[in-house]
Amino acid sequence: MNKAEIRKLLLEVKNNEIEVEAALGVIEDLPYKEFGFAKIDNHRELRLGYPEVIYCEGKTVEQVTSIIQFMLTKDNNILATRANEKMYESVKYICAEAKYNPLGRTITIRKKEEQLTDSYIAIVAAGTSDMPVVEEAAETATILGNRVEKIMDVGVAGIHRLFSKIDTIRGARVVIVVAGMEGALASVIGGLVDKPIIAVPTSVGYGANFGGLAALLTMLNSCASGVSVVNIDNGFGAAYCASIINKL
Amino acid sequence: MNKAEIRKLLLEVKNNEIEVEAALGVIEDLPYKEFGFAKIDNHRELRLGYPEVIYCEGKTVEQVTSIIQFMLTKDNNILATRANEKMYESVKYICAEAKYNPLGRTITIRKKEEQLTDSYIAIVAAGTSDMPVVEEAAETATILGNRVEKIMDVGVAGIHRLFSKIDTIRGARVVIVVAGMEGALASVIGGLVDKPIIAVPTSVGYGANFGGLAALLTMLNSCASGVSVVNIDNGFGAAYCASIINKL
Amino acid sequence: MNKAEIRKLLLEVKNNEIEVEAALGVIEDLPYKEFGFAKIDNHRELRLGYPEVIYCEGKTVEQVTSIIQFMLTKDNNILATRANEKMYESVKYICAEAKYNPLGRTITIRKKEEQLTDSYIAIVAAGTSDMPVVEEAAETATILGNRVEKIMDVGVAGIHRLFSKIDTIRGARVVIVVAGMEGALASVIGGLVDKPIIAVPTSVGYGANFGGLAALLTMLNSCASGVSVVNIDNGFGAAYCASIINKL
Amino acid sequence: MNKAEIRKLLLEVKNNEIEVEAALGVIEDLPYKEFGFAKIDNHRELRLGYPEVIYCEGKTVEQVTSIIQFMLTKDNNILATRANEKMYESVKYICAEAKYNPLGRTITIRKKEEQLTDSYIAIVAAGTSDMPVVEEAAETATILGNRVEKIMDVGVAGIHRLFSKIDTIRGARVVIVVAGMEGALASVIGGLVDKPIIAVPTSVGYGANFGGLAALLTMLNSCASGVSVVNIDNGFGAAYCASIINKL
Amino acid sequence: MNKAEIRKLLLEVKNNEIEVEAALGVIEDLPYKEFGFAKIDNHRELRLGYPEVIYCEGKTVEQVTSIIQFMLTKDNNILATRANEKMYESVKYICAEAKYNPLGRTITIRKKEEQLTDSYIAIVAAGTSDMPVVEEAAETATILGNRVEKIMDVGVAGIHRLFSKIDTIRGARVVIVVAGMEGALASVIGGLVDKPIIAVPTSVGYGANFGGLAALLTMLNSCASGVSVVNIDNGFGAAYCASIINKL
Amino acid sequence: MNKAEIRKLLLEVKNNEIEVEAALGVIEDLPYKEFGFAKIDNHRELRLGYPEVIYCEGKTVEQVTSIIQFMLTKDNNILATRANEKMYESVKYICAEAKYNPLGRTITIRKKEEQLTDSYIAIVAAGTSDMPVVEEAAETATILGNRVEKIMDVGVAGIHRLFSKIDTIRGARVVIVVAGMEGALASVIGGLVDKPIIAVPTSVGYGANFGGLAALLTMLNSCASGVSVVNIDNGFGAAYCASIINKL
Amino acid sequence: MNKAEIRKLLLEVKNNEIEVEAALGVIEDLPYKEFGFAKIDNHRELRLGYPEVIYCEGKTVEQVTSIIQFMLTKDNNILATRANEKMYESVKYICAEAKYNPLGRTITIRKKEEQLTDSYIAIVAAGTSDMPVVEEAAETATILGNRVEKIMDVGVAGIHRLFSKIDTIRGARVVIVVAGMEGALASVIGGLVDKPIIAVPTSVGYGANFGGLAALLTMLNSCASGVSVVNIDNGFGAAYCASIINKL
Amino acid sequence: MNKAEIRKLLLEVKNNEIEVEAALGVIEDLPYKEFGFAKIDNHRELRLGYPEVIYCEGKTVEQVTSIIQFMLTKDNNILATRANEKMYESVKYICAEAKYNPLGRTITIRKKEEQLTDSYIAIVAAGTSDMPVVEEAAETATILGNRVEKIMDVGVAGIHRLFSKIDTIRGARVVIVVAGMEGALASVIGGLVDKPIIAVPTSVGYGANFGGLAALLTMLNSCASGVSVVNIDNGFGAAYCASIINKL
Repeated sequence: MNKAEIRKLLLEVKNNEIEVEAALGVIEDLPYKEFGFAKIDNHRELRLGYPEVIYCEGKTVEQVTSIIQFMLTKDNNILATRANEKMYESVKYICAEAKYNPLGRTITIRKKEEQLTDSYIAIVAAGTSDMPVVEEAAETATILGNRVEKIMDVGVAGIHRLFSKIDTIRGARVVIVVAGMEGALASVIGGLVDKPIIAVPTSVGYGANFGGLAALLTMLNSCASGVSVVNIDNGFGAAYCASIINKL
Repeated sequence: MNKAEIRKLLLEVKNNEIEVEAALGVIEDLPYKEFGFAKIDNHRELRLGYPEVIYCEGKTVEQVTSIIQFMLTKDNNILATRANEKMYESVKYICAEAKYNPLGRTITIRKKEEQLTDSYIAIVAAGTSDMPVVEEAAETATILGNRVEKIMDVGVAGIHRLFSKIDTIRGARVVIVVAGMEGALASVIGGLVDKPIIAVPTSVGYGANFGGLAALLTMLNSCASGVSVVNIDNGFGAAYCASIINKL
Repeated sequence: MNKAEIRKLLLEVKNNEIEVEAALGVIEDLPYKEFGFAKIDNHRELRLGYPEVIYCEGKTVEQVTSIIQFMLTKDNNILATRANEKMYESVKYICAEAKYNPLGRTITIRKKEEQLTDSYIAIVAAGTSDMPVVEEAAETATILGNRVEKIMDVGVAGIHRLFSKIDTIRGARVVIVVAGMEGALASVIGGLVDKPIIAVPTSVGYGANFGGLAALLTMLNSCASGVSVVNIDNGFGAAYCASIINKL
Repeated sequence: MNKAEIRKLLLEVKNNEIEVEAALGVIEDLPYKEFGFAKIDNHRELRLGYPEVIYCEGKTVEQVTSIIQFMLTKDNNILATRANEKMYESVKYICAEAKYNPLGRTITIRKKEEQLTDSYIAIVAAGTSDMPVVEEAAETATILGNRVEKIMDVGVAGIHRLFSKIDTIRGARVVIVVAGMEGALASVIGGLVDKPIIAVPTSVGYGANFGGLAALLTMLNSCASGVSVVNIDNGFGAAYCASIINKL
Repeated sequence: MNKAEIRKLLLEVKNNEIEVEAALGVIEDLPYKEFGFAKIDNHRELRLGYPEVIYCEGKTVEQVTSIIQFMLTKDNNILATRANEKMYESVKYICAEAKYNPLGRTITIRKKEEQLTDSYIAIVAAGTSDMPVVEEAAETATILGNRVEKIMDVGVAGIHRLFSKIDTIRGARVVIVVAGMEGALASVIGGLVDKPIIAVPTSVGYGANFGGLAALLTMLNSCASGVSVVNIDNGFGAAYCASIINKL
Repeated sequence: MNKAEIRKLLLEVKNNEIEVEAALGVIEDLPYKEFGFAKIDNHRELRLGYPEVIYCEGKTVEQVTSIIQFMLTKDNNILATRANEKMYESVKYICAEAKYNPLGRTITIRKKEEQLTDSYIAIVAAGTSDMPVVEEAAETATILGNRVEKIMDVGVAGIHRLFSKIDTIRGARVVIVVAGMEGALASVIGGLVDKPIIAVPTSVGYGANFGGLAALLTMLNSCASGVSVVNIDNGFGAAYCASIINKL
Repeated sequence: MNKAEIRKLLLEVKNNEIEVEAALGVIEDLPYKEFGFAKIDNHRELRLGYPEVIYCEGKTVEQVTSIIQFMLTKDNNILATRANEKMYESVKYICAEAKYNPLGRTITIRKKEEQLTDSYIAIVAAGTSDMPVVEEAAETATILGNRVEKIMDVGVAGIHRLFSKIDTIRGARVVIVVAGMEGALASVIGGLVDKPIIAVPTSVGYGANFGGLAALLTMLNSCASGVSVVNIDNGFGAAYCASIINKL
Repeated sequence: MNKAEIRKLLLEVKNNEIEVEAALGVIEDLPYKEFGFAKIDNHRELRLGYPEVIYCEGKTVEQVTSIIQFMLTKDNNILATRANEKMYESVKYICAEAKYNPLGRTITIRKKEEQLTDSYIAIVAAGTSDMPVVEEAAETATILGNRVEKIMDVGVAGIHRLFSKIDTIRGARVVIVVAGMEGALASVIGGLVDKPIIAVPTSVGYGANFGGLAALLTMLNSCASGVSVVNIDNGFGAAYCASIINKL
């Protein structure tokens, strides 16, 4: 609401064209409106089609269940990440159509089927051990309305496998690269593909991997341009970033 | 070049419709063509409008000058990052139109003026001490052909300053957030803006900042979705990522 | 006991106005008295109203129980932190009025109701996962005699929620900010509130959070003045600091 | 400005008791007023007596000088921290009454003498090498209007020196403890004094001190309650915290 | 396939000496052939005598079993590393001749007995706690076709034990040194033996060992030349390196 | 055996005063004798009164039992550290007089009672949670033949408790200081006592304690002279050092 | 001063055998006397033969000079560590007999020649680059009155050089081991010598040495018993520890 | 020298076939001979063709010069690493044929030309900034008698450049991979080449590179087998390892 609109409103008050209480209601909202508070608007949008999201790590089965029960009173799709099997058992009890992805540890509930984009997000992973993160990213990207292509097991130690899939990767609008161990895959793909690349280091590895730190540093220091990085194992965050870009 | 095309070529050889040497030339290139090697194609594109880039850190004045001298034989714009004043003096000697941004430590040489995008990249910085990174990012984004809006000095400790600029930030197609100290700005903007956010931690700070590590960890752990991160002080990398996204 | 008082005592000895043994008892205590040894005096005060405190981590159920049994012989209130359910079961057996806060993992035993301050300590938390630390801080502050206001779930990713509670936060005499993940909340509140702020990083998060290190560094590097920091997850320590300040 | 006041304003508009443009001016400011934006009010206050602050690290002599030149157009006292001698030379040129504390690396300019508090802040330091941080804290606390008592060279290795000053420390309303090396002083004072203690680790030391990390961890893990911590070498921050508490 | 060979092929096409489809088949493979993709050729070799390898950590019993079931359809020997007893139970069920090394946590399946080299790899370990890594290395080296000599319990704290085995160590063609704690053994052997030394730090130790970091740093900083290092606890990797060298 | 002695031996051979075979036996031993190999001699001594030591961490119950069974064939006392209750059960089965210290996690078997020194080692601990390390140190020091005095719960937060025990500490020939949390106790005692001080950081604590790292760094950076440090939780090592010194 | 002595004093007061003021003087000193405050007594002793010590790092030439000028008013020997050449120039100006060790960076001033012990401290160093620390330790040990034997350049990569000096090392009462790089020397000597060993890691090295961290961790994790550790490059501290032990 | 040989010697003494003094000389050397002390033998070999090596870092110009002056008295080639220009100036003064490689910072002096191997060591580097390490490795490998092939600027971001050189890399007997930034090159080459690979992380990079730590961790965690790692920037060490392997 800009200056001109407020002036117009005041003139309407002055001219008795609007009730004081009605004008009051408009002005009262100004602080939020003025700054727009993305998340409010956004949340409103969310109510019109975006999923509600809940991060389950460190919550009890009871907490997760009751939060989802509350979410179910609204009409949105629901995505629960880092959910264990017990949480799913409990949620299924209150909502039969809930689905569980045991590898990705996600619970999804669809009130309406999402419309998928034409362009797709490629999720490329170095090894089969990175699958939990791939699945979390894929479930997130899908419920956010994106078409997804998964390319598994194309680590740099067998680079010909990567090359045989390079067309699919290049065809994507955004690429998510998931890799643990030394995380070199992001740099190699960064040198082959001129698309935005979101790199997700995973905690797969041992010893001097230090819980994903090695892959994280590798990706942050990538000599290939066009690579940005999210937190270790953060498949959800990568998919969220990719979705915003894919829908630009 | 797919199977059908190779078959067609071979038939032309068989039918004497093409010289063996000409066919040889085509096939010889297959390995590169098949995989396409982004960087080759890309470099070709670069020759048609993208800048050549040189990272000067750890190179001598002589090395930088001679590399740029070689680049000048081609028709591309040129961007040198992490360049000091002495390098600039030397480069200006061989190319009078070279320009130096002392804060951003960039040398730019323009053979042709780049066409700027309509949409713009917002570069938002927490403090004036972050200006070197902002300038590097701005010079990079501009020479890559992007319109840029800089919003300085909107750190979270004075959040009203950020709010007074929120419309400009929201109007961008991509947002680069530059912050040192504790790096909280990325999270706050992530909560206010539904655009792709590339966060650049800077080494501004002291003590338990550990050369930018504090801001880096903050940004990687951002509780706001839509934030991905590049290396500490990597203004160039952030701008490159943002440019790819802006031009999708 | 100052020089004049000792001289007076010696004169009384000289003048037979006091028994040698009595004077001896006074002087014998001098070393402690002279330096006052806060904790001794303080402990005496404690006996007059402050709670006895026991940190249960790494102690066995038996150890905790017997320490509390000993404490019960005195007349003070009792606060046990980091206590698990089994400890509570055992303590309840010897003291029926013991109360357990399962989230905050505290056992409290009140011999007399504490007199609460008029001014209050605001405990502000970024997310629901930070509740264990909030509860530990709240139980501690309360049994130390402070009025407490809890403001939950006002993380910076949804900054409007924070703003709707800003008056309550500003009304406090001391503010405790509890945040995990990237811990940016302390800086934002530091920029909005001119009260002493005790920041508590929590271990909530994963990956590059490194068990709370990310939030800790964020808070230590806060660009907002007026923020000081306690150990990761140290709700007790924050409340103790806040209580000293609140009662100045 | 609450709902009732806005309603009253609108009624005045309606009743022609106030000009539309005047009402517009009031409403236009609402977003800031509503949230109050501490720093605005605060800055206003600052203009009435608080100092303007500038952090000089990483700024050029020219930048520092021109920022101070701008500050001089207002009537506030000025505090520049982390200023080197060259900056001072330059500032003195435009403002003869500027004063430099070479140890504390502060420039202070006083337009009016500050009214000092009755209660004082004790700044206690382990060794003479910690003096730069002590001086920065002392200059900050003083220009913020606090009476300061400095107690130097009372490290725990010679604990009797600490004891001979214990009364002065206990007499303070807030205690700042400055220590490098192993930083044990904060814990010892925390056990002797029941006042709020702001601990400042310093980078004094070598080897496994890791630039102040050792003292920082020591202070964060203090077994004594009532200790909170600021960043390494952050004398300014400690004094700011202490000042807020001292003036409660 | 070099230029001359392609030219010859095209001439054959032109002269009808080869079918177009046959020529197509040759050319189609060019990209891989051209670069040779070691791992393809290598994998082919593997099928002729090298073992198939599977890393079991982080895989489920079902995943491991089904991967091995697939491997069994080929004629190669099989090595599964980081396998637990449950995995072995399940594998034995589908392949009775599978053998389990509980210390080394390896499953081996031999379709044909490997031909061992005359020269041997010495695996030297500091303590008995390093045995799991020794066994993993020994099983790997053996199934890769190398003769192995194990020298246990010759840590530097009892250096005479090392000396009594020095001839066996010197007789090896490659030496693997396995050590946890402070990992000094690699340096000492590096000073006594002029053979390639592959050092494996182990996670044996506690406290400031930081999960093998101490031994890792020791080995990387070895003042003895001729020592290179693999990841913490990576017995497999050390044996693989040693095998390549032993078979040069 | 020096040059003169060898010459004498050779002359005896030459003069037929000694059999060739006898001389051979003497010379054969030269390499070991020359260097003396402390541990050999020492082990011989050990057989005459020192205990045999076994570190049980990471060993199985069976391994521990069979090693001790072998040790029992000799006449030495036996000390097993880091032993759990199951190991003890199994050892008691083969040796009824074995004793278990559940806090210190030591098994001791005495074939003969050790003669204790007159001078004693003081083991001083900050808190009751440090007791496991204290007990390991005490068991070790005692079986090595040292008189031990334990002083518990004298952390620096209540420094008067330390002072009330200062005479006992000063009376020792060597002092072991055991402390977790911030580990400040070593510095304070270092300032009060002019005896060799062996500091043992413990892993007691949480958060920014980082598993004992905080206490370790504190102790290494101690501003008090005369303090040297062993590994985190290494009660055995501290006692071994102290015993060597006590018996000088 | 014990209870009986105070009672006696009071009786003397009562019986007029002592003036009140005189008794007052005695009692006034009680707190210090009672606890004895080592450093006071010790300092008194120091005046009778021990050196005064000043650590020059981070002090200005002026500060060092004036502190030494003050020390010169007393009769003690003086040791200044971490002193640079400029400091020495300035000190020599006020005290001609001051001597400078440029490698060890120590200034020593002897008012009287110290009486050296019969037993000696062996200072053993891995490489010539460790000489600065060796010299600091040697100067410190000597001025503290200890005979010193230096054994240089016996790093573990050439272990025979160590063996040729083993008798000298074994002949010492205390051994200081100085080593950078991987610091393995301490463990090897720990296995050969049954004397107290003070290990000093040095910052000699590069890369993954991390300023001495590698050697520090190696020494803390030493598998040889009898080794305790001081801070990186802390030659003074090691010598001080060794001196206390040597003089027991 | 085995038992039989000693017996024979003693019999010769007995039979007066050898002088006692001569026999003494033989036996005197036994301890060294018995253990063989590689470095002694080796050093003897060195005198016959291997270079003498001196590491100049942290040494003064004078020290380096006088050490080389001493080396010149022998007949070996000489290699000085980490030498700066001033050292070279000084060395050239005493030995005109000394050569300096300013990039590799090596001084080489050849008394006789080394015989190069037929097989060669490939030194592969990611970027031009890695040249100092490449040059140090190349100078070392050459003076150790190895033929060397350098392949520069084949970082993974432009993987086609690497492929165009793959035949040269595969033709080597040993491969040294030099890479800074994220260090991914080692993994990619490890997947393409079945030769021993010595990886050298370099400190090239900035920010979260942490002085080469990122590349170091990448290489240690390499998912490609056959890769072992030396210290950051340790070109000398890598060449030494490679030389031992090349000459097997």
